[in-house]
Formats: sequence, structure tokens, C-alpha cells
Amino acid sequence: MLETIYKRRSIRAFHPDPVPEATLRELIRAAMHAPSAGDERPWQFVIVDDRELLRRVPTVHPYASMVPTAPVAILVCGDLKLETHEGFWVQDCSAAVQNLLLAVTAHGLGAVWLGVHPRRDRVEGLRKLLGLPDHVVPLALVPIGKPAEEPAPEDRFEPEKIHRNGW
Amino acid sequence: MLETIYKRRSIRAFHPDPVPEATLRELIRAAMHAPSAGDERPWQFVIVDDRELLRRVPTVHPYASMVPTAPVAILVCGDLKLETHEGFWVQDCSAAVQNLLLAVTAHGLGAVWLGVHPRRDRVEGLRKLLGLPDHVVPLALVPIGKPAEEPAPEDRFEPEKIHRNGW
Repeated sequence: MLETIYKRRSIRAFHPDPVPEATLRELIRAAMHAPSAGDERPWQFVIVDDRELLRRVPTVHPYASMVPTAPVAILVCGDLKLETHEGFWVQDCSAAVQNLLLAVTAHGLGAVWLGVHPRRDRVEGLRKLLGLPDHVVPLALVPIGKPAEEPAPEDRFEPEKIHRNGW
Repeated sequence: MLETIYKRRSIRAFHPDPVPEATLRELIRAAMHAPSAGDERPWQFVIVDDRELLRRVPTVHPYASMVPTAPVAILVCGDLKLETHEGFWVQDCSAAVQNLLLAVTAHGLGAVWLGVHPRRDRVEGLRKLLGLPDHVVPLALVPIGKPAEEPAPEDRFEPEKIHRNGW
């Protein structure tokens, strides 16, 4: 488990091999096991594997140039109608994204977290592209595939950011 | 890895045994390996194991009654001075909290994510209790200890929340 946490790196180059349907389901299952405020589970997931849609994503997101090269992407959204604890959907959905990325790594695949909300142009662009209703807010787009790059593990421990019983 | 994701449950009852210092460090190391927008790593961690401070936490957080029974708690904060991509610190720090919870589970310990931000009273109460500067925003308080309860695993898969190439 801890090895998976340390092994996970952002992957932006993919082989075109498709991700099996059963694997996609397992990735989303892992995402859905994130904790959420009062167990509200305010998430929705959009699997995007239509080549034309993937090709158009970079027209609505400035850092998504690799998306058309990925076999599939998963858009993690917050559903404001499901939010029973106001103000916590972003945290809930972010925990789900992190579970998704770790499950991707555990499956030997690669992915990158492309931030969407709170950038209004990205939110509106993806909403229009995918026909999302107004109460569904795209939080993060995660292209997924067999990695075509292998970034070295990195030590990110910063002890100066640890405090004790106060500041 | 996937087993850890499914095994993780919110734990609100603890044995008083202390969590070894090396373990605390490993838990925070795992949290620090979360992805963040542009690798900004806008987090700060406050370890709280002073009994008097733990005893006072429920006076500033309405769902923290178990905190005084935990040997230790970690407060995950966002440092607005470290945020280089405006608006993404909550997502970054939430991914760090999720890594922390998974590392807790992997170590055979238990924890619960107590939401702080964006509830102003909880933010200000914890800021005052711990002397946090204005640019440091407490996001989540995570009491940690040896579990004194063992909730059964739960199936949280909701296929109706999966969509394909649009809504």
C-alpha cells in the first residue's frame, strides 16, 4: 500500500492499448470508497473513450494536450444535489480522485490529475462538451492508460512542514 | 493496495496506546506524496498529542467528542503563502488527507476525517487553540490510534453514478 503511494507519479504519455472495461469499473469502485462528509458521496463519474470527444478536450482545458493520446479519461464531478453537508463536496471528490489515482497505479497503469474546478472556463467548456447539467461540477479530468514514460520515484518529505502542539 | 482502500473505515474509538514517533513520521511522509497543482505542496501538518489541547478540541469542533480519547491527532492545514495555483489548495490538501488515512489503515491503526474548513467557527477555534497564523487554514483534523472498534467492510459501489461520453 505505502509502496503504491510512493510509486504514484503523474503520467502524461500513454500507449494506445485500451483499458479493459472490468478495470475501469474497479478503478471507479476504488474511487467510490473514499470517505465523504456524513457519507454523502456527492460524486458522479463520466468515462470518456470517444476519440472525437478526447480530441476536443484540449480546446477547453489548457493543460490537456496529452488527453487525445490516452485510451480513456475519467471525469470526476461533484453533484450539488447530492451534497448534504454544504461546502464539503470538493474535499469528498478530491479524496475519490486520489483513490482513483492509487488504484490506477496498483493496476500498473498511469494517469494525471488535471484540475478543472474552480477554473470557470474549464468547468463550462467540459460541461458543454459532455452535456452535463448545471448541478454537476467537473472537478478533475484523469486520462488513464498504459504508461509510456517512467518518472523516477521522488522524495517529497519536508520535515519543516511538521509542527507540534501549535505553530 | 486496493484491499487497504476497501478496508479503510472511519474509526471513532481508540485504545490509549501511543503511536510511535517513527510511525507518525511515516504517516505524514505518505500524506506529503499526494499530487498537487503544479507540485505546489501547499500543506502544513500539526501533530497534537498534548492531553490538554486534545481535551479542548471538542469545545471548538462539534463532531470531535472522540478526540480526547485518541493518543494523537494530526491537523492538516493549507498554507495560502505556498499556493502558487490559486484555488487548488483544498484539493491538494484533501488528497494528502486521503493518503494519510490509507497509510493509517496500512499501519493497522484507525482514524477519522473531521472536516474543518470551510466552517468558519471550526477554523477560527482551531487557529486560536493552536496559535496558527492567518495564512494557515486548518482543513481536516485526523485523530489516530489503535482501533477500539472494527466496522465491517461496506460495498459502496453505485453503478448509477457512472456515465459514458456524456450525461
